[in-house]
Amino acid sequence: MKKKKGMQSFILPNHPRIVSSSAVVGKKEGEGPLGSYFDSVCEDDTLGLESWERAESMMLEQAARKALSKIGKTPEEIDVFMGGDLLSQIISAGFAARELRSPFLGIYGACSTMAESLIIASMLTDGGFADIAVCGSSSHFSSSEREFRYPLEMGTQSSPTAQRTVTGSGAAVVASVEADLETAVYGYIAVTGGTIGRVCDYGITDASNMGAAMAPAAASTICAHLAENVIEPGYYSRIITGDLGRFGTQMLYELCYEKGFDIENVHDDCGLMIFSNEQKVMCGGSGCGCCASVLCSVLLPMIESGDLERVLFTATGALLSPLSSLQGESIPCIAHAVVLERISL
Amino acid sequence: MKKKKGMQSFILPNHPRIVSSSAVVGKKEGEGPLGSYFDSVCEDDTLGLESWERAESMMLEQAARKALSKIGKTPEEIDVFMGGDLLSQIISAGFAARELRSPFLGIYGACSTMAESLIIASMLTDGGFADIAVCGSSSHFSSSEREFRYPLEMGTQSSPTAQRTVTGSGAAVVASVEADLETAVYGYIAVTGGTIGRVCDYGITDASNMGAAMAPAAASTICAHLAENVIEPGYYSRIITGDLGRFGTQMLYELCYEKGFDIENVHDDCGLMIFSNEQKVMCGGSGCGCCASVLCSVLLPMIESGDLERVLFTATGALLSPLSSLQGESIPCIAHAVVLERISL
Repeated sequence: MKKKKGMQSFILPNHPRIVSSSAVVGKKEGEGPLGSYFDSVCEDDTLGLESWERAESMMLEQAARKALSKIGKTPEEIDVFMGGDLLSQIISAGFAARELRSPFLGIYGACSTMAESLIIASMLTDGGFADIAVCGSSSHFSSSEREFRYPLEMGTQSSPTAQRTVTGSGAAVVASVEADLETAVYGYIAVTGGTIGRVCDYGITDASNMGAAMAPAAASTICAHLAENVIEPGYYSRIITGDLGRFGTQMLYELCYEKGFDIENVHDDCGLMIFSNEQKVMCGGSGCGCCASVLCSVLLPMIESGDLERVLFTATGALLSPLSSLQGESIPCIAHAVVLERISL
Repeated sequence: MKKKKGMQSFILPNHPRIVSSSAVVGKKEGEGPLGSYFDSVCEDDTLGLESWERAESMMLEQAARKALSKIGKTPEEIDVFMGGDLLSQIISAGFAARELRSPFLGIYGACSTMAESLIIASMLTDGGFADIAVCGSSSHFSSSEREFRYPLEMGTQSSPTAQRTVTGSGAAVVASVEADLETAVYGYIAVTGGTIGRVCDYGITDASNMGAAMAPAAASTICAHLAENVIEPGYYSRIITGDLGRFGTQMLYELCYEKGFDIENVHDDCGLMIFSNEQKVMCGGSGCGCCASVLCSVLLPMIESGDLERVLFTATGALLSPLSSLQGESIPCIAHAVVLERISL
């Protein structure tokens, strides 16, 4: 058994590995501190298409195609494409899957989707059900504002706790040891384990304060991971969260500290990495595409180079909908985590 | 390798099995020909709650709890709950997962969600990552009308090709051979294999004609399954689709026939089983909860009793959103299939 009874954490003994990745982002993300790492920066966030939603789907498709082309593969050659996005009925991923024509498994974990996809893809690969699986996730500032907040034309001011949804996509190729590969972008970045999240809800109803809503879920999963595996935060070079932002990150530190883990010195948040203070994005970046694009452009190469030896990649998602907010429901949140480490065989 | 290169079909050599199930439906479904088979029929489709959305989530939670209670288990004892629904950002499943407090993986495959969940749960169980997984899916007539069509208060007439979204939920418990179980509802109903769908899009844009949109996806997956496994339709006691309805079923027969498979004599559609002609639901039932509730109340007991020896359970999903329809996009569809059969060890 690769998962102990009553525990959320699991191990992947057959060491599925990430062999390639790609990230495509928008203009503002390209102007940020990580700008030079992305595979492609779109100067026009419509990509010349008729809607932001089409553009978002196209960015996800491009990331998947690029990640595959780096290892000389086409979408026809993969076993499964899986992923999702923030839009209703995950249309970005669904429409991208239509173009890719690969077998498709749609996933919804809000901004935790990239980690959730990596968990499922790694389990399927470890279990012998796939040799090559592509995980992808995307978000788009303008499509998200339309979906969750106000029409952009209104020019509504952001609240101080708000985060800016990242326009971007990331795709990672997970392969089994047996996969028929001629080349790989990364030597051996294995997904060696992880932790499946439980839904947490502290009763927060403010959809402009996602960091506060999601921090308890991140703390729950990170602390469960550390406790179940009997390790300290320092076991990881970095514990990376998806998009807690400035406010949520502080809350995460407090919540973990209360549970006996001081993670502050080993923690980074993709939402804080992707934009600089000068870019005026309030509490940082957010969205499925935030941690997906940072993982696929910055984190994986840092693991490959040895700058990071072992990473706990933890993405949090807020499982609200525009309707649930209007109906006054609080925001249930979830966090999923995967362990990424460079290993030598 | 449990999945051959370039193929969509897979096998599950460790024979994960379905050990329990439960279905909760609404009043109209209870009045239909399958009424006596459901575990629970809700006389009030709000369940006394403030919104249809809350009621839908509660029905899913109830189905999961009932399925588990039949085998003396609680949600705290399972490895993972997975599933989804039709609402934006799968709030029914997300909110149900919050109450169940199990590790949760959110899935989105529209009306194919039950089959997609069974695929992933079976792979995770077969691969050793879960001993007990619960798959669940739900839909609600009133919440779906609000989500995808018109306010019910308008009293809009249905078009002749329309189907009625089923108010109902189904949950099935998938267990490994090693699972620590004292009892089981079913002797040994194994999930022995299946086929992951590809997205199909024939350019249909009419959201009131889902059967026609989804039939090509069903044909694609069923024919891929038969061809890849080199079997004829008669290999199955029944090939069951989710909710193609009257019109979509006819189209499915034609499309399969064109590909060399005559499935008419072995095919049933849950959307046609759940309502009678007298109930005036136009082309039949639809929704995630349609095939989920029929599977969990009628089909599994029929496999258990030997009335059905071997079933290809194929659920189709239309991957549209209200927004994509308004933007004039066509409706990409997908179908996933699992093989269910009673085996003796």
